[in-house]
Amino acid sequence: MEFIWIVPLSGVLAVLVAAYFAWDVLRRDVGSVAMQDVAGTIYEGAMAFLNRQYRTIYVLAIVAAIVIAGLLGFMRGGEEGLSLAWHTAVAFIFGAIASGLAGFIGMIVAVRSNLRTAAAAARLSLGDALTIALRGGAVSGLLVVALSLLGVWGLFELFGGIDRVDVNGTPIAPSLIVGFGFGASFVALFAQLGGGIYTKAADVGADLVGKVEAGIPEDDPRNPAVIADLVGDNVGDCAGRGADLFESTAAENIGAMILGVALFTATLARGATIAEAAVWIFFPLVVRAFGLIASIAGVFAVRPGGVSNAQRALDAGYWVTAILSAIGMFVATQFMLGNLWFFWCGVVGILTSVAFVYITQYYTSGTWRPVQEIANASRTGPATNIIAGFAIGLENTALPAITIALALLASFYLGAQAGPALGVPVGSGAAGIYGTAIATMGMLMSAGYILAMDTFGPITDNAGGIVEMSDQPEDVRHITDALDSVGNTTKALTKGYAIGSAALAAFLLFSAFLDEVGIILGGRAVEGVNIAKVEVFVGGFLGAMLVFLFSGFAIRAVGKAAGDMIDEVRRQFKADPGIMAGTSRPNYRQCVDISTRAALREMVLPGVLAVAAPILVGLILRWEAAAAFLMVGTMTGILLATVFNNGGGAWDNAKKFIESGQLRDIKTGDVLGKGTPEHAAAVVGDTVGDPFKDTAGPSLHVLIKLLSTVTLVLAPLFV
Amino acid sequence: MEFIWIVPLSGVLAVLVAAYFAWDVLRRDVGSVAMQDVAGTIYEGAMAFLNRQYRTIYVLAIVAAIVIAGLLGFMRGGEEGLSLAWHTAVAFIFGAIASGLAGFIGMIVAVRSNLRTAAAAARLSLGDALTIALRGGAVSGLLVVALSLLGVWGLFELFGGIDRVDVNGTPIAPSLIVGFGFGASFVALFAQLGGGIYTKAADVGADLVGKVEAGIPEDDPRNPAVIADLVGDNVGDCAGRGADLFESTAAENIGAMILGVALFTATLARGATIAEAAVWIFFPLVVRAFGLIASIAGVFAVRPGGVSNAQRALDAGYWVTAILSAIGMFVATQFMLGNLWFFWCGVVGILTSVAFVYITQYYTSGTWRPVQEIANASRTGPATNIIAGFAIGLENTALPAITIALALLASFYLGAQAGPALGVPVGSGAAGIYGTAIATMGMLMSAGYILAMDTFGPITDNAGGIVEMSDQPEDVRHITDALDSVGNTTKALTKGYAIGSAALAAFLLFSAFLDEVGIILGGRAVEGVNIAKVEVFVGGFLGAMLVFLFSGFAIRAVGKAAGDMIDEVRRQFKADPGIMAGTSRPNYRQCVDISTRAALREMVLPGVLAVAAPILVGLILRWEAAAAFLMVGTMTGILLATVFNNGGGAWDNAKKFIESGQLRDIKTGDVLGKGTPEHAAAVVGDTVGDPFKDTAGPSLHVLIKLLSTVTLVLAPLFV
Repeated sequence: MEFIWIVPLSGVLAVLVAAYFAWDVLRRDVGSVAMQDVAGTIYEGAMAFLNRQYRTIYVLAIVAAIVIAGLLGFMRGGEEGLSLAWHTAVAFIFGAIASGLAGFIGMIVAVRSNLRTAAAAARLSLGDALTIALRGGAVSGLLVVALSLLGVWGLFELFGGIDRVDVNGTPIAPSLIVGFGFGASFVALFAQLGGGIYTKAADVGADLVGKVEAGIPEDDPRNPAVIADLVGDNVGDCAGRGADLFESTAAENIGAMILGVALFTATLARGATIAEAAVWIFFPLVVRAFGLIASIAGVFAVRPGGVSNAQRALDAGYWVTAILSAIGMFVATQFMLGNLWFFWCGVVGILTSVAFVYITQYYTSGTWRPVQEIANASRTGPATNIIAGFAIGLENTALPAITIALALLASFYLGAQAGPALGVPVGSGAAGIYGTAIATMGMLMSAGYILAMDTFGPITDNAGGIVEMSDQPEDVRHITDALDSVGNTTKALTKGYAIGSAALAAFLLFSAFLDEVGIILGGRAVEGVNIAKVEVFVGGFLGAMLVFLFSGFAIRAVGKAAGDMIDEVRRQFKADPGIMAGTSRPNYRQCVDISTRAALREMVLPGVLAVAAPILVGLILRWEAAAAFLMVGTMTGILLATVFNNGGGAWDNAKKFIESGQLRDIKTGDVLGKGTPEHAAAVVGDTVGDPFKDTAGPSLHVLIKLLSTVTLVLAPLFV
Repeated sequence: MEFIWIVPLSGVLAVLVAAYFAWDVLRRDVGSVAMQDVAGTIYEGAMAFLNRQYRTIYVLAIVAAIVIAGLLGFMRGGEEGLSLAWHTAVAFIFGAIASGLAGFIGMIVAVRSNLRTAAAAARLSLGDALTIALRGGAVSGLLVVALSLLGVWGLFELFGGIDRVDVNGTPIAPSLIVGFGFGASFVALFAQLGGGIYTKAADVGADLVGKVEAGIPEDDPRNPAVIADLVGDNVGDCAGRGADLFESTAAENIGAMILGVALFTATLARGATIAEAAVWIFFPLVVRAFGLIASIAGVFAVRPGGVSNAQRALDAGYWVTAILSAIGMFVATQFMLGNLWFFWCGVVGILTSVAFVYITQYYTSGTWRPVQEIANASRTGPATNIIAGFAIGLENTALPAITIALALLASFYLGAQAGPALGVPVGSGAAGIYGTAIATMGMLMSAGYILAMDTFGPITDNAGGIVEMSDQPEDVRHITDALDSVGNTTKALTKGYAIGSAALAAFLLFSAFLDEVGIILGGRAVEGVNIAKVEVFVGGFLGAMLVFLFSGFAIRAVGKAAGDMIDEVRRQFKADPGIMAGTSRPNYRQCVDISTRAALREMVLPGVLAVAAPILVGLILRWEAAAAFLMVGTMTGILLATVFNNGGGAWDNAKKFIESGQLRDIKTGDVLGKGTPEHAAAVVGDTVGDPFKDTAGPSLHVLIKLLSTVTLVLAPLFV
């Protein structure tokens, strides 16, 4: 049990390191006045949006907290219902605040790091620019994981820890803190949806009128939507993805602790002390703590001196994190669980993480067949480009799904091997399911580093924009272009990682839901979810449908907002010819406003739908249907998110493939680059992919976990 | 039991009526020599393709039959295994032949009806043209349903009927004839895939080079791909959809008979005679027979005299069919089952069919919001058109899914009410599941008429092409345009109907699978499918993945083939300027060849994947995982097919909305019709939608049922 102290220690350490990185980044050179001017406008726009967005989210969250507390208190009734209601409401608000805080602080640093990165590119070196961008991103990455860990642990202890048990002797604190995960999911859903709509409305609008109609380059200061586009990169990728992974880590921790309760009880029954048995409950927190330390080490391993290849430098940091994670996993499994089988479960998770990195690269990088096929299809126009890209998107679900299937089967099998040694009933599957949970923990150990790499993306993208808009010399652009290109890869990888870990976590969370149902039913083991029953089948079917409907709403929101943006940019160009001539400054603020208002308006309907649908299914068709809703919704969500994420990424890179002059005329051998019909076709594909990969896809990650947490929290009402 | 004679009677009657219709259509006026020339070329191309396609399919089918027989005989072993193996193989081949025969004869008549329809439009009236097209389509529609019904019944009797029982007294003939459904599914899969790839490769190629690049109208004789396009309409919609509904009706019959076995046993146990108990097994056949007679009446109800509105005339025929179906359902339930509750189950099915008709119209007709939204999004270019269309496609899954959910819940509930009166154990759900089966039967009663309306589509489409290519006067075109437009609607409705009935049939087929497993396990009732088990969860997940992967392959095949077609058309235009000048005739045959070869080549991989995947899952992860594979695959397939079908239909009609001059400039109020950038954007959307709605979507209907039949047939290997 002495291991538990690593949890607060690592959390506090990570917060301190984040503070150091923030200080380290902020004290750097801020470049020329022109640069500061651009960066200042981005900062303003980002903060204005975040302020308004989080105000809306918190109003919704308070309503949700009251409704949940009311439902739980009223429908369960009595003292027990009252206690459950207020614990859940407090945990919910706590989760919502912690998630928002992590995102907010991370954003503040990110939208200041972009300027420092640009300045370092202009005045120092690639290595310095890289380090600043990564450390700026690490503020967000480390805070997210640290606040999630500290939040779960702190709340668990606050709510009585392992000492607080029900009449059957089962610790109830893990069930009381599920509200924390729900609060985090709730904020994440709206943060990701709003951020995703914002960024893509701006991006689509800026590209279609700027690049396609007016023929001006990316990030050209004459484009009225350019600032909105740069702001969007931050609110989508940084704040949105941060909230997403905050939710993943929190939900995985809580779910695994609930699963630990079953093993706790079994261990106690074998005559162990409470302290000995409690390792099952604390183990997930300890593993996360080791992962956090590994991630800190990974960020420090990336140093400015002698960097010539940015991707390789970041990869080195990732491998440091992965190897330290494996060592941490070994220590934790050996000294806490005393069983080597569980270590191998963790290795399965770490390997799954690696597999997702390579699969994502295969499907989204110009080096391989998929992207080249889309680029080739651009020869016959936008329609065949779209058809090819969509086909690739659908096809690319296979390898991730098979990987997840193998990881689940392998970690279940490995975990089950440990069962007999622990005296767990073999048939119950408790050890096998704990094995899948450990694989999930293994995969999520590197979350801090991965998130730092992800936020690196918008920082370097913004740095490129600042360099372009402040008219810096060619060699500075080369540096920021190189970083930006690496940033695109890391953003794509993070999405793959997020979806893979969400898939693993999902199985753990279903199992936790069934355990919850069992506990509510008075300790009776729940047999399972029989999808052959008509109402359970219907529940599953509606779960899958929700995923499609939600995606439709998200994509439609971007389409509508982008339409408004296009109209506004066209209007400005027409009203003031000085804009295109470069003599007058476009009205950036107007475009920022359009994105802001559209995002806030359009995020509400899909968000409310996502929260309300599982509650309705659970209340009407009961818990087994709710479980099927959750499971089939999750399966479909994982696949559809993969279509969106990687399909969108492939379209994007097919366009870049053509822009970099790699597509040639079959007969003449001439380069078919920018300005050709082939390029125009590829731009259409890229634009279609924008809301796929940056709005619908990432929002689905969040939706999946929200389904899990909402059903966990409201399980008492569905039984 | 005297009711059973209506089965062969109605089947033979339908064959005779089909023969009469064929004679009636073929004796009609064949129009001018120019018309005959065009029609002759279409006929040749269609027959050449069908010959080659079915040759390939039958080679694959023979291989499949041998593999299945080998697997069953070898793995089950002994006399029982041997008997199962040869019965299944014979049934499989029989199903494959019957399906092929229905498709082939229907096609022969359809590709001759087009000419007669064109001639009637030129020389007689709208009413005559309508009647010829509908009766030409009815040959296919009636033969499909009749051969399916006669095949199932004949084989059932051939394999021993209800007298042949196993050691537990359970009739085994229903289990022995599942091979018939599998054979039909097998042919349907390749027919639909091949036909779908053929038609859309030709259509996309013809549109992109002809309409967009060369600026010539649809069906212009100067377009080298025009004949391939016209041939494609037949092989896709007529042969493909015919095979699809052949499979639906056969699989539904067989599945319902297997479900009837459980009630047969329960009824016998209550002391009834075998004849009394057997009604449960024969009931599905009798209902289909009544439906067939209702469909014949529906076709006869549409008469040439005084037709002014083609849609209304077809609707009248549909309502005749629906009302007679309801009466037939009442007679069958009252006199065979003696329970009013079951009649209401049938009514639920008939109402579901009506609901699907209206939902499909809402999402695919220019009168309502969805299509108008896509047309509006064309103002800002192809990218926003695609985004809007895709969002609509995703959104439009909700109403069909909710309809299916309600239909399942309602018919299960109504059926369960009948249970106690029948002495069926209430908890077993057998009566409820039989209720869902009756709803499916109710929905499929009108299959003959619906299919006649569907084949009406390609016939009138071709008639329009013949009129256009043979340069007929304006008023003749008005008639064929009116019919073609109605044909587009009926094609869309048929897809909605096909997917809705497939969804209802799916639940029945799962239940049949579980009954099969129970019978194989020696009469032990199977509890269900527990999706919380890791291997079952993985099975479900892989089932959903298969649907995505299969769709990706299907769409990609069209993209590749269309690319070849575009290259060929561009080559012909360049090589011979006389083509565009109208002085030389393009090489139609070359384009027909490209579509033919591409279709045959590209249909194999997705087809084999679809057959092999469920077998592998069943063999490795066993029956419960196979059941989950089937169920989740079906749910996802229904939703994705709805996205493809209605999304594609909406894009198509958004283009037509613009072409008909209904989109106007917001400021000036000018019509934004053909030739504008808005129209060009809508053409891109229509083209993207082509492989969605005519290749991937319809192929998914077939895939879903194939999954059911393959798992049913191979259930003995998975247990």
